[in-house]
Amino acid sequence: MEFTIKQIADFLQGDIEGGDSIKINNLAKIEQGETGTLSFLANPKYTQYIYTCKSSAVIVNKDFKPEQEIAATLIRVDDAYSSFAKMLTLFSEQKPPKGISRKTKIHRSAKIGKNVFIGDFVSIAEGVTIGDNTIIHQNVTIYKNVTIKSESLIYAGVQIMENCEIGNNCILLAGAIIGSDGFGFAPVKDGEYLKIPQTGNVILEDNVEIGANSTIDRATMGSTIIRSGAKIDNLIQIGHNCEIGSNTVIAGQTGVSGSTRIGKNCMIGGQVGIAGHLHIGDNVMIAAKSGIMVDIQDNEFHMGVPSFDARKYKKSYLYFKNFDKIAKRISELEKQVKDLKQ
Amino acid sequence: MEFTIKQIADFLQGDIEGGDSIKINNLAKIEQGETGTLSFLANPKYTQYIYTCKSSAVIVNKDFKPEQEIAATLIRVDDAYSSFAKMLTLFSEQKPPKGISRKTKIHRSAKIGKNVFIGDFVSIAEGVTIGDNTIIHQNVTIYKNVTIKSESLIYAGVQIMENCEIGNNCILLAGAIIGSDGFGFAPVKDGEYLKIPQTGNVILEDNVEIGANSTIDRATMGSTIIRSGAKIDNLIQIGHNCEIGSNTVIAGQTGVSGSTRIGKNCMIGGQVGIAGHLHIGDNVMIAAKSGIMVDIQDNEFHMGVPSFDARKYKKSYLYFKNFDKIAKRISELEKQVKDLKQ
Amino acid sequence: MEFTIKQIADFLQGDIEGGDSIKINNLAKIEQGETGTLSFLANPKYTQYIYTCKSSAVIVNKDFKPEQEIAATLIRVDDAYSSFAKMLTLFSEQKPPKGISRKTKIHRSAKIGKNVFIGDFVSIAEGVTIGDNTIIHQNVTIYKNVTIKSESLIYAGVQIMENCEIGNNCILLAGAIIGSDGFGFAPVKDGEYLKIPQTGNVILEDNVEIGANSTIDRATMGSTIIRSGAKIDNLIQIGHNCEIGSNTVIAGQTGVSGSTRIGKNCMIGGQVGIAGHLHIGDNVMIAAKSGIMVDIQDNEFHMGVPSFDARKYKKSYLYFKNFDKIAKRISELEKQVKDLKQ
Repeated sequence: MEFTIKQIADFLQGDIEGGDSIKINNLAKIEQGETGTLSFLANPKYTQYIYTCKSSAVIVNKDFKPEQEIAATLIRVDDAYSSFAKMLTLFSEQKPPKGISRKTKIHRSAKIGKNVFIGDFVSIAEGVTIGDNTIIHQNVTIYKNVTIKSESLIYAGVQIMENCEIGNNCILLAGAIIGSDGFGFAPVKDGEYLKIPQTGNVILEDNVEIGANSTIDRATMGSTIIRSGAKIDNLIQIGHNCEIGSNTVIAGQTGVSGSTRIGKNCMIGGQVGIAGHLHIGDNVMIAAKSGIMVDIQDNEFHMGVPSFDARKYKKSYLYFKNFDKIAKRISELEKQVKDLKQ
Repeated sequence: MEFTIKQIADFLQGDIEGGDSIKINNLAKIEQGETGTLSFLANPKYTQYIYTCKSSAVIVNKDFKPEQEIAATLIRVDDAYSSFAKMLTLFSEQKPPKGISRKTKIHRSAKIGKNVFIGDFVSIAEGVTIGDNTIIHQNVTIYKNVTIKSESLIYAGVQIMENCEIGNNCILLAGAIIGSDGFGFAPVKDGEYLKIPQTGNVILEDNVEIGANSTIDRATMGSTIIRSGAKIDNLIQIGHNCEIGSNTVIAGQTGVSGSTRIGKNCMIGGQVGIAGHLHIGDNVMIAAKSGIMVDIQDNEFHMGVPSFDARKYKKSYLYFKNFDKIAKRISELEKQVKDLKQ
Repeated sequence: MEFTIKQIADFLQGDIEGGDSIKINNLAKIEQGETGTLSFLANPKYTQYIYTCKSSAVIVNKDFKPEQEIAATLIRVDDAYSSFAKMLTLFSEQKPPKGISRKTKIHRSAKIGKNVFIGDFVSIAEGVTIGDNTIIHQNVTIYKNVTIKSESLIYAGVQIMENCEIGNNCILLAGAIIGSDGFGFAPVKDGEYLKIPQTGNVILEDNVEIGANSTIDRATMGSTIIRSGAKIDNLIQIGHNCEIGSNTVIAGQTGVSGSTRIGKNCMIGGQVGIAGHLHIGDNVMIAAKSGIMVDIQDNEFHMGVPSFDARKYKKSYLYFKNFDKIAKRISELEKQVKDLKQ
């Protein structure tokens, strides 16, 4: 694939600063560019590299102000990061695999759409429906009555349990478990526990991504729901009966306990823990490693274990870091007061 | 399946308040009930829903005192949660799958009990023993000399390594790894590490549940042991040579380092980390996200990183939250003392 | 296998204290020794057991000073732990499995070395290269153009995605995912996200160990690199474009966000979270459960969330633990100052 800088700028609706006829045949990180490659600069941490960058062109934000000379042609756009994402999509497009491996076990009652790919050692049970253009890689198990809509991509080692529903354009990364039993036990006599049957399912709406080795538990009754456009990173645990709102993004190793509802457009950091039966509003931000024990209103930003308002938390933490100085001030006061009293 | 309210109350040894002849054909969450369904109320957070609940009957605790009129018939029991669990078990019972898929590889020396189900793409090695009525789903690998007793349920994608022993009535959720190598390395020259062979095994006693994608490491020598009735949630790591006591419950994403012994009837929250070579007593509670660096005595409740007594921790944390006010008080004192000295 | 104590001491270049002709036919933990077994003592926590130890011999450090009589013969060495590791290696050596299961799917273009073992239900795609003596267990998927060098060991349920490279003598424990997509999304209109294609790969250099169910994400462009000799425990997440230095050891459930580089010979505790785009130096230590938001220089030791110097952290934390006493001192001062003012 090869484009001129002019073609790329037109495609991105960007403005060119420098030569526009150079041919671009690959993409590169700004610190690893070569002639013929296109790079981007979005995170200010990497600004230093643009002055020595060997790429033929660099996509930058409209308001980028160089402080030295730059050899590369600049393509100025509204959002350098998403423009580069578009180029990356263009350059990385591959012909999707087609066909169904003979080394599979597909129940005769399963309904398989058009242009579906099914890899080796995939087991598809009774009553499963798979939509057009969906791709299912190797060593995947799809239990009874699962529905997967169109254009979804299921990587190797994924397990999708009974009755779960996967929307259109979903991506399930390798090893993800959809519909494992929720963690529900009722105490009985002598400290023993009775398992609460988990009879509900998991629903992923459209455009959901579930990370590698993440686990989304089925509901006890009803559904655990991941709303349209939500992005769930690797090694995340979503408990039974949770609901994750539309376009909410959750970073790696976070856990959400049962029956908690999270609103839309939230940004939740990595290794966060959220207790059960809570309600987290829309547009909420939660700092990495926080522990949430209370409901959070729309637009709030929480931090800490247990969490509270992030700005207030940072203030308290600054005092904590300097606790030795504060303790010294108290000792000093005690000495002075003692002197005064004498 | 259909029962009268009278039949259900008799089964649960509960008292009926309201009509007792209505037919129940399904269960529902209290906020989603319909005519003909049975719900329950145990967590006070959900009390509000009982006054508008459309279920025909609701299981409640004996001491529940309504504050408004309730349309549904009440069934009063000693423990609403476990009574509902019994009903859920009754309603969700399915005929277990039977038979052995032809798309498996079972070593001729393996001993397979009666009424065992083995799904597609399961590999069972030399010397394996599987007890009666055990169910093994798809894409599972069972290594050499593993023993699985009766009535156990192994979900898709589980891997059970050499010499491990699984008891009766155990449930291994999808993707769980039983018997991976412990993390043991001896430093040698130049910063390099020598792998310590992990030659022991894992023993799960009876009625143990291991969550999805959890990893239970084999012992270096001897056994990592999960005692009878212990419940281990998803994405949990149990290190080599650990011992988890009977009926101890551990919530998601917790990690226990090597050689730590945990007593019986403990309740350990999610995302807890426990250092190695520790001894945690019986009936211990550990708050979610705590980091344990010390032994804990029977019946204690720990919190914090590193953890200490939870009540003391909560007190310190309350001061921490109001650190700015405390700092102001110190500044104010300094001003006053300065004034006094002049 | 059977050795005299003399043979073992010669092999370890150790000094014998006690009888040297006794035959050793097995190894045992110091608290579980029997006649004919060899044990070791390295961690002082276990010193108590040596005085009642029933093993025929115990490997101890050169500087070990017994405080009571010991029945067992002592073998004094420079490093008891690594000496025992050598013995364990000797005693646990097994004949590696050989041969290729017929229940696999291996693309005709794949290049398979000598003495390779490939287990049941393994799928090996186009363009894959596997070096001599490498062992691949069951239910593994190896995507297109993956290279695995010699003497590596891939456990059941591992998935290795397109274009990834595995070095010599690597060990991938069960369920590990190598090369899953990095978590990269660009915000577009209405709160939606555009997936950033992840077109790079993962490179594991030689002697790397990746724990069970850990996930190593591929780079957006370029490579995520785990350098020679690094040891990564279970349930760890390494983000896209990270670099983990040589002989760095990372304990379970730690997460490293995208584009962070970690130096060599670091020791990183369990459940640590490291933010993205950071640079962690060489020989750095990070306490378990820390959250790293800043670059760390060589040889530093960090602790806390967000982290800072560990010694300083411990001091602050000690004050935190006694916050009630500090608050009392402030109240007392306030009373005294009030009295003085009157």
